[in-house]
This record gives sequence, structure tokens and C-alpha cells, in this order.
Amino acid sequence: MNVELLIIGNEILIGKTQDTNSNWMAKRITKHGHHVRRITTIGDDLDDISSTLRSILERQPDVLIISGGLGPTFDDMTLKGVAKALNRKLILNLEARRSIEKAYENAYKQGILKLQGMTPEREKMAYLPRGSIPLKNIRGTAPGVKLKVGKTQIFCLPGVPMEMKAMFKNSILPMLKEKKEQFIQKGFIFMGIGESQIAPHVTRLEKEYPQLWIKTHPKVGLSIEVELSITCFNVENGEQLVDEVIEKMKKIVLELNGKLKEY
Amino acid sequence: MNVELLIIGNEILIGKTQDTNSNWMAKRITKHGHHVRRITTIGDDLDDISSTLRSILERQPDVLIISGGLGPTFDDMTLKGVAKALNRKLILNLEARRSIEKAYENAYKQGILKLQGMTPEREKMAYLPRGSIPLKNIRGTAPGVKLKVGKTQIFCLPGVPMEMKAMFKNSILPMLKEKKEQFIQKGFIFMGIGESQIAPHVTRLEKEYPQLWIKTHPKVGLSIEVELSITCFNVENGEQLVDEVIEKMKKIVLELNGKLKEY
Repeated sequence: MNVELLIIGNEILIGKTQDTNSNWMAKRITKHGHHVRRITTIGDDLDDISSTLRSILERQPDVLIISGGLGPTFDDMTLKGVAKALNRKLILNLEARRSIEKAYENAYKQGILKLQGMTPEREKMAYLPRGSIPLKNIRGTAPGVKLKVGKTQIFCLPGVPMEMKAMFKNSILPMLKEKKEQFIQKGFIFMGIGESQIAPHVTRLEKEYPQLWIKTHPKVGLSIEVELSITCFNVENGEQLVDEVIEKMKKIVLELNGKLKEY
Repeated sequence: MNVELLIIGNEILIGKTQDTNSNWMAKRITKHGHHVRRITTIGDDLDDISSTLRSILERQPDVLIISGGLGPTFDDMTLKGVAKALNRKLILNLEARRSIEKAYENAYKQGILKLQGMTPEREKMAYLPRGSIPLKNIRGTAPGVKLKVGKTQIFCLPGVPMEMKAMFKNSILPMLKEKKEQFIQKGFIFMGIGESQIAPHVTRLEKEYPQLWIKTHPKVGLSIEVELSITCFNVENGEQLVDEVIEKMKKIVLELNGKLKEY
């Protein structure tokens, strides 16, 4: 499946917060044989959210995961932006409202919060775009959202990493695992010859093995790391293929008077 | 100035590499009073690069900083994508060629690389879109690129953080510093009351102080961090204003029976 990620939060654009959510999700999406095609980061701005969502939907990814902006404050406007983009109303979802009420009730009983009951800000989180299914937030208060638009399955997750991860594992991972493809990645590091010198051999091998994506990464100190990647149904054959090409690459490196450095 | 960042690299989309370049740049752009409006991450794909660049140019940011995909291998295709988007030819830039030749000559003399002289892959890095000014890469071989399209100043920097940072400092930072605005950010952490409880007070204060952006961030364990930000010409007054609002916020927290936690 083709997946796009949309990260929403001013704190990322001003450099206060390093976005680690997209890397965490990308690893898991890739591992299960799917492709992250694009990661877009924008601020908590209604027009930016709605226009960006429209552009993403034009590209028709199978899955869009939005993270951030689900909280109770006025500048958490992800769902308002989603509703605007889709021309749908925000509607009070009773299931979402109950889960929010329960989460605050628990926090009150545990003495974590001193204000009991619902407030307009707390209730705001239960207003979901028409057609949404609320997703349980076992680590916080704001429920997530699942809704389908055309062929695109949209998920809205919280931006707080702990809450996002729990919701991803519960609500998205089972769907990703349905595909039997697996992503295999192996590589090795060499020194003494540059990326430019190995480049023609990489080009030749990529033609010979169109199933593989071979990528060289320059490392500090002019040593070069060569990384081979493959996505395949049959894991055993995939591993064999990658191992075969790695041996060929190592031979080429040695023939060019390069040195191998084991991981 | 409005700034967009475009990060190019399959290794980020598959989750192998955590992009830290955009956070590093965003911090510095914000510090000097400018605004990062959007960060887009895409793969090393010619069509994605050119179509994304066109979309960005339609939004007419003052500055677009592209990072990644300048190296010697076939899958480093940022400049090809830029040329395609702008309908410009890639032309051999003699200044760029000389700097590449010199970098490889130095690596050869120091015994770091064993292949002397230019190869097609090395020369590839000297082909720049028509109208480009090459930027010195003091930490690597691939030169950067500066070119203006409409009102947008485009910079193409390497993806290797060490090389990107050196080029950013030399070629972009002086331009950012020309503006006398400064970004001030202060905040404090409180516990015992939730984000939803402080939200109406934040809304009220934002109306009272339209120059400020007040943001609450939930932290682990249900304590809440309140962060205030301001962008202003006059740093001294800006600090005063932020301090004044921080005192008001602290008073509100205490009145609501919350507890303050000093940094």
C-alpha cells in the first residue's frame, strides 16, 4: 500500500520539537512491505490543514496517517481542518464523548487532575467529522479518528508520541500486517574508494537485479556504506538474492582496492 | 521571510534515517525571526521532485531550502528534478567542476581515495540547472546550488548533515541575519490541572496579547508545559511582554490549585 504521513504542529516548524513520530511510523510501515511516499509537516493552521489534505487526497494514497492537533485547546484544529477539506460537519460522537469523560473521571479519581466533569474544551475533542469512527486513546484523552474518503483510509492520531504509538499499534498495525510482503535490508561498509567510483557498478547491478534497490550512503571520513534493500513476498528467496548481490559488491570493492569494514 | 524546506531521500521515507536536518535548520530560521511554513519529505524520484517543486513555487515562499540528492550516484537526482520542474537544461558549470576536481585531488593526495582524476559520476555533480550559482562544499565534494525563480530564492544543499550545516552557515545564515527581528521563547511547567482547564485562559490571553503565540504541550504524567513565543523587532520589550504574560499564567495556575514546577 502507498502511505502518506501528515504531521501537524507549530512546535515542529519552529524547531522546538524534533519530529520522531514519522520515523517511528515509517519504520513499521516499511517493515510490513508498504511504502511511505511522502511526509508533510505543517502548522496548526486551518487553511493549511484543509488545502494540504485536499492535495494529498488528489494523489489517492491507500492510507493517510495524520498525527497531531487533536487536543482540547483552541489551536488543536486538525479535525476542524479535516472537516473543512471534506466539506463535512463536525458532529458530537457519543462514543468518543464517553471515552473522554471516563479518562477525565479516572484522572480525577487518581488525584492527577482537580477539575471533575466535562468542560467545553474537553467536549470539543468528541466532535468528529461526519462519518468518522473514533479510535481508543489508551494513553491519553483525545480519541483518534478513522474515516474513508474515496480509496483513501484516513487515520488521525494524537501527536504525543506515547499516545500515537499505542493507537498506531492497536488501530493501524493489524491492517498493515495483512499483507504478506516483507522488507529486507542488509548492507556493509567499505573504505578507500568513493561513492563516485562504485556508482557505475551499482547502476549495472540495479539493471541486473531490478527487484533490488541499491543505495550508497556517504559516511563521515570518506568511507562509504553500501545498503541493499528488497521488498518481496518470499522472504527466503529475498534474503538469498540480497546475500548474492552483497557478495558481488564486496568482490567489486576489493578489486578496486577498497577495504571492507564489518558491522 | 516565509521559508519552505524540501527534504529528499528514500532513506528517510523507509525509516532508516531520522531526518535531523529540518529540525536543525528550522531552529536557526526561527531564531532569526523567519517562518518555516512547511517541511516536505519525498524520495529520490524524478517526477516527485519536479511536481513537488512546482507546487512549492506556486505558494511563492521567499526561500526554499532543498536538502539531499546532490551526490555522484545515479539515484541522486535532485538537480535533474529541479531542472525538469523549471524547464531548464543542466549545464556543466566550470567553477563547480574545478571545486569537485580539487576536492578529489585532495582526497587522493591524503590517501583517502585511490582513484585519481575525474570520472563521469564525479563530473555529473558539476551539471547545474541553467542560471545556478554553485555553493562551496567545504566538507565534501558535491557543490550546492543557489538560484532564483520568481520571488523565491532556492538553495540546494547536500543531505549529509556535516556538509549541509557548513553550507547553511556560509551561504544562508548571513541572509537570514539581515532581518533584525528575533524570536523569543520562554515557558514553564505546571501540574495538577489539565490542558483542557487552562485552555479558556489561554484563549483569553491570546486575545489580549495578539503579538504572542501561546501554546500548551501535554507532557508525560499529565503535567502540562506552557510555552509562550514571540517574534519582535525590539527584543527588550518582547522579553518584558513574555515575562508579564508568564507571571499572569502562573497566577492562574495557582488559582486553579495547580502546582508549578521550575525548569
